[in-house]
Amino acid sequence: MGKPPGRARAASLNKRVVYGINPVAEAFRSRGDSGAIVELLVSEKRGDRLVERIVGEARSRNIPVRKVTPADLTRICGRPAHQGVAAVLRGGFPYRSLDDLIDAWRRTGGAAFFLVLDCIQDPQNLGSLLRAAHCAGVNGVVVPKDRSCPVTSTVVKASAGATEHTPVARVTNLREALKRLKQEGVWIVGIEADSPKSIYEEDLAVDLALVIGSEDRGIRRLVRRECDLCVHIPMRGLVNSLNAAQAGAIALFEARRQKDCAGIRG
Amino acid sequence: MGKPPGRARAASLNKRVVYGINPVAEAFRSRGDSGAIVELLVSEKRGDRLVERIVGEARSRNIPVRKVTPADLTRICGRPAHQGVAAVLRGGFPYRSLDDLIDAWRRTGGAAFFLVLDCIQDPQNLGSLLRAAHCAGVNGVVVPKDRSCPVTSTVVKASAGATEHTPVARVTNLREALKRLKQEGVWIVGIEADSPKSIYEEDLAVDLALVIGSEDRGIRRLVRRECDLCVHIPMRGLVNSLNAAQAGAIALFEARRQKDCAGIRG
Repeated sequence: MGKPPGRARAASLNKRVVYGINPVAEAFRSRGDSGAIVELLVSEKRGDRLVERIVGEARSRNIPVRKVTPADLTRICGRPAHQGVAAVLRGGFPYRSLDDLIDAWRRTGGAAFFLVLDCIQDPQNLGSLLRAAHCAGVNGVVVPKDRSCPVTSTVVKASAGATEHTPVARVTNLREALKRLKQEGVWIVGIEADSPKSIYEEDLAVDLALVIGSEDRGIRRLVRRECDLCVHIPMRGLVNSLNAAQAGAIALFEARRQKDCAGIRG
Repeated sequence: MGKPPGRARAASLNKRVVYGINPVAEAFRSRGDSGAIVELLVSEKRGDRLVERIVGEARSRNIPVRKVTPADLTRICGRPAHQGVAAVLRGGFPYRSLDDLIDAWRRTGGAAFFLVLDCIQDPQNLGSLLRAAHCAGVNGVVVPKDRSCPVTSTVVKASAGATEHTPVARVTNLREALKRLKQEGVWIVGIEADSPKSIYEEDLAVDLALVIGSEDRGIRRLVRRECDLCVHIPMRGLVNSLNAAQAGAIALFEARRQKDCAGIRG
């Protein structure tokens, strides 16, 4: 099997496809008025209320709506998990710079809350982490350019569309990015199974960047060296550990809890 | 494409296949000495240390080891995610009864900690929840027979083998099971996004059964009626909610934290 032709075409014209009810709805909510959505594709076989609502949003903004067969939609999306709806957006995924993230945080007037992902390669895990990060209220997510899954349509779908709202900075050098965050007064806290202190023993109600390592290898040694401290999530049982997406969600919400508990804004 | 022949064959002889490095290693750890493992299958293309260690465990127990092509292994497992190794086990997944779970809890002499899953249908989510439950130290997991994903090879893989250690009771009537747990003095706490109180405001350091609803519909109305109380996980952001696996992991570890904090055993 070669590349699905629809996907290749979208890529060659510098467009991206967002599919699934939630991701498309979130794309309309986030970018519907920006002119970024060039077309809405709807399966001939789908006519329920959720899809009708999205069609209504497209029509009210004069965005063209095209009926396609389910098979064509699967080809365009590259997978069958489209739930009968897809949006074609201008350009690739709109990565931000680290400066953008820092500016966004400064504008909130609250405490910093960043998620740093060191080489997450599984698109489902990346989507899941972006969803958890959005729900925990982070100011942004930092990922390295190399050895890391890009924000593909699969990631957008796995994030339930959270990618359309959460700024993601893709940096060339993750260590330099962490140094920069430290200069801004942000504490860098790595989640590592073999750290002596637990996540419940450290004060996370600070200007914070949580670092989560890859599924196989954890945080890379040189990245870990930039962490101000590392903490573990206390566990029972015989199976080694949680996966990166679970550990990330638990750590993000523990930080959220501590911040809310301390009455810290942001 | 029909049923993969290897899988069908295993099913017809009342055997099950566990695949992937972690799941097979956990199957050996949990059931290696019980005579339950009838054969170890290893891909001809795999010869690294992790596989060699498992082969050594099989040989020391006189369990036959068979070399197969990667394509055959994919056929037998039903998917390509086998990492070059699979174990064939006698019988289906060894579900326990609710009585078994209650006995197991009583034997610990500690506080009860159960996870109740109301109609989780996605095997990845179910595996992820079983992994988180094991790592959080639950006494067992309760699932309904109907409208719920069974513990398949895919679930075992997604759980990283946690299924081989965590007792799972599959009950005909989930409401009756909750009534029974209440009779034993267990508090039934549902996780529901629209509950007024948050998970951090309620005391979870009690004899506890956490109830997680399905991806689409949450906890069914009649099951919810059996809950002593419902709590939500406080969230920011625009995207509706976490998925069931994320919400479950966060709730399980918040309960674990509270129990540990209160110095409660179990």
